[in-house]
Amino acid sequence: MYCFFNKASFTSHSPKIKMEHTRIKELLNATEFGKEVVVKGWVRTFRNNQFIAINDGSSINNIQAVVDFENTPEDILKRITTGAAVRVKGQLIESLGKGQKVEVKATEVSIIGDSDPEKYPLQPKKHSLEFLREIAHLRFRTGTFNAVFKVRNALAFAVHKFFQENDFVYMHTPIITGSDAEGAGEMFQVTTLNLSNPPRKENGEIDFKEDFFGKSTNLTVSGQLEGELGAMAFGNIYTFGPTFRAENSNTTRHLAEFWMIEPEMAFYELEDNMDLAEALLKYVIKYALETCPEEIEFLKSRLLEEEKSKPAAERSELNLVEKLNFVLENNFERVTYTDAVEILKRSKPNQKKQFKYLIDDWGADLQSEHERYLVEKHFKKPVILTDYPREIKSFYMKQNEPDAQGRNTVRAMDILFPGIGEMVGGSQREENLDRLLARMAEVGIPAEEMEWFLDTRRFGSVPHSGFGVGFERLVLFTTGMTNIRDVIPFPRTPKNAEF
Amino acid sequence: MYCFFNKASFTSHSPKIKMEHTRIKELLNATEFGKEVVVKGWVRTFRNNQFIAINDGSSINNIQAVVDFENTPEDILKRITTGAAVRVKGQLIESLGKGQKVEVKATEVSIIGDSDPEKYPLQPKKHSLEFLREIAHLRFRTGTFNAVFKVRNALAFAVHKFFQENDFVYMHTPIITGSDAEGAGEMFQVTTLNLSNPPRKENGEIDFKEDFFGKSTNLTVSGQLEGELGAMAFGNIYTFGPTFRAENSNTTRHLAEFWMIEPEMAFYELEDNMDLAEALLKYVIKYALETCPEEIEFLKSRLLEEEKSKPAAERSELNLVEKLNFVLENNFERVTYTDAVEILKRSKPNQKKQFKYLIDDWGADLQSEHERYLVEKHFKKPVILTDYPREIKSFYMKQNEPDAQGRNTVRAMDILFPGIGEMVGGSQREENLDRLLARMAEVGIPAEEMEWFLDTRRFGSVPHSGFGVGFERLVLFTTGMTNIRDVIPFPRTPKNAEF
Repeated sequence: MYCFFNKASFTSHSPKIKMEHTRIKELLNATEFGKEVVVKGWVRTFRNNQFIAINDGSSINNIQAVVDFENTPEDILKRITTGAAVRVKGQLIESLGKGQKVEVKATEVSIIGDSDPEKYPLQPKKHSLEFLREIAHLRFRTGTFNAVFKVRNALAFAVHKFFQENDFVYMHTPIITGSDAEGAGEMFQVTTLNLSNPPRKENGEIDFKEDFFGKSTNLTVSGQLEGELGAMAFGNIYTFGPTFRAENSNTTRHLAEFWMIEPEMAFYELEDNMDLAEALLKYVIKYALETCPEEIEFLKSRLLEEEKSKPAAERSELNLVEKLNFVLENNFERVTYTDAVEILKRSKPNQKKQFKYLIDDWGADLQSEHERYLVEKHFKKPVILTDYPREIKSFYMKQNEPDAQGRNTVRAMDILFPGIGEMVGGSQREENLDRLLARMAEVGIPAEEMEWFLDTRRFGSVPHSGFGVGFERLVLFTTGMTNIRDVIPFPRTPKNAEF
Repeated sequence: MYCFFNKASFTSHSPKIKMEHTRIKELLNATEFGKEVVVKGWVRTFRNNQFIAINDGSSINNIQAVVDFENTPEDILKRITTGAAVRVKGQLIESLGKGQKVEVKATEVSIIGDSDPEKYPLQPKKHSLEFLREIAHLRFRTGTFNAVFKVRNALAFAVHKFFQENDFVYMHTPIITGSDAEGAGEMFQVTTLNLSNPPRKENGEIDFKEDFFGKSTNLTVSGQLEGELGAMAFGNIYTFGPTFRAENSNTTRHLAEFWMIEPEMAFYELEDNMDLAEALLKYVIKYALETCPEEIEFLKSRLLEEEKSKPAAERSELNLVEKLNFVLENNFERVTYTDAVEILKRSKPNQKKQFKYLIDDWGADLQSEHERYLVEKHFKKPVILTDYPREIKSFYMKQNEPDAQGRNTVRAMDILFPGIGEMVGGSQREENLDRLLARMAEVGIPAEEMEWFLDTRRFGSVPHSGFGVGFERLVLFTTGMTNIRDVIPFPRTPKNAEF
């Protein structure tokens, strides 16, 4: 297939909404000195009764407004406090201070909304990420979180741009579902039944016929199976939506509610699948680097600062920008599970029994420590592990012929990233109806509940592949943040659904 | 504010994934006659043992492959049935048939996946939309649903493109929530408790401390309140995600799970809000018209065909393309609720008592029949109704000063579209803490559960506005489909959560 961009015919730009004020990001790049401008934003600091640093969220940088304090009423000056919303009218002038090119010489200052400095939780000092997580509704007002969520925004848009340029159809797969796509995983139940006193059948079981959907339903763990239905019609589709896991995992890499990107492609074999995944990741990271240079520079400095508290040996060899460029400039290493196990067996931490889980035999699932060794120590770049043992992977993956020792593998591929672990999980799908049915029977998935899915193998079945990208892990990697709760606006984790 | 497009610096295109075959959409526009090509796709029809119409989902149009049936094995010819997947290698040649510019003179035909014509539900004839809804997992393979979901895809991408060009931050607000944003509405409960035997407190009530999140949680009905937190930090944000209503409404315009777009803007007053909403709707419809001309032409014909079965008086005056252009070319009519009520009181259907709900007094909510009269009969274009009575709108809307008769209204705005009714609902928000608290007390919303939301009014409160667009209603309007279940891949409605 030679992809092409068929949307080029649309060249219109969106109309501009006319407002009284100009956004600070635009002013910071302006050169029309002497022009009268209006700024609206929130006070970050107010120094010497004279210099207001104002931020309106459009940029991580503030604009400085210089107040003529002798001609400004005392009661206004008093109310220019951190967090207050102000309107400043004045002249845009070249700045004499360092660190800024422009500033506003204020002729009028008014308070739009006060902020009591005794009560406002965000003070002009460094707050810990833990503290900011407690006030997640206000943390967007800090430089760090402004940068994180601007990068998140850029990555999200880049995902859409990439797939649209490649003529994929964006498909909204259902959130509430009666089926468990992975045939595993702990799921959230969705119901409108009265939990205190649900309707029951004669045998005492809950009568889900009375529930909203007339049956028991859950929150989706993956849009893949529905995505396959789309791929068998449109050729190439992708989803980008929320998915859910009711796992009691309190780690820095797990969320109960997270966003996932799941493309699914007809006529793609495993190699094509890997090519696509690698191209996608490089494209979106490049997009973030190029459209958010200030934010990523800020996050690079933040990370360097954070790492100062670590022993030198534990600090990253590369800074954030170097790390992102490194991913762009190198091919991901493609290794079979079988080869990876050989590497791990012979590795120093295995020989010296430093791994918590020692690698003795072929067949075991790899642990985080093994993935990190492969990615961070052995190959020192993103790794695509393929052809995993059949028994540790999902029923829908295409089965390879048994190898010389009679071992069964499937055409799976996981992409492992430094510091993150699994960024992508995917596979070529089993397109043969009989093999798929046999595997479903082995693992105990009732075929009669999956007739709609099996129809894709009955009517014009074709080789096809797909994968899922954990979006928050992508944001985590690109921003250099270390806790996944800091890269989604309002994290949902065990015992926590605040805001 | 003068908006600007700051992403222009990114000019890279996504890399092309090399495949053996070329997608049909590309071949249909190709002119390199004589070139050898490979097509992979599904058989739509096979005529005279010679002409295969193949579709791969990239286009609503098929490509014709001409088989040299005398030199093709009989057992292959037999398996070229509707729905089967085939690979055809051959020469791209200029077509002599009408309705197509190119065709493929096949030199090799192979079957990738069979389709038993006795069992395949989609036959080359017209199926009813009701029947296709029963086999929603296969309906994407028809021309109508290919066109509908291509237009849906274009509209979704255009939404992102519009907001990105205007420097809005895409924000993923939570799906699982402990709060009810509208202060009303029937919600789906989310739980991991054992429904048969949930943990109970001493007084017999369910003990939600034992639930996954340590409290009772629901599926979100709106991301607005969290969006407001974002607007108070980034200035302009938007959400685009699934929302849920557990309403037992079995209509052609309601879904239990639907996608909503919710922008929220600091420093926007109601007029700015209306300007933005109108600009957004025009932009995305224009994008669909310009990037999906064949799909919309197809849907126009489909609608004309469907309307033939109606009495002439009930048919649309404008065809689909004319209707879409009409929206682009006209300003939306902006009318206050108070003026609209006067128009309705004096209207013929009210005078002749043809309305089911007669308009006598100021204060009642408008019904669908009234909205349709205003939009379809009186103004004959999209209408923005503003300044509704306070009592019929949400607590968070900004209160106007009482009018001369002492009537209380709020700065609400609903955008009504012909054939659809409410496409957009929005308002300026009440930014004054005391007024907001008073209103919450009146309608019985406990302030202590909303402290995080109230903080936006405590610390640097500013005038701000936002609105919600029901995405499926937008798709309904743009595609000319008449049942909302036909514009989302797998509709969720009372007693229905199939696939």
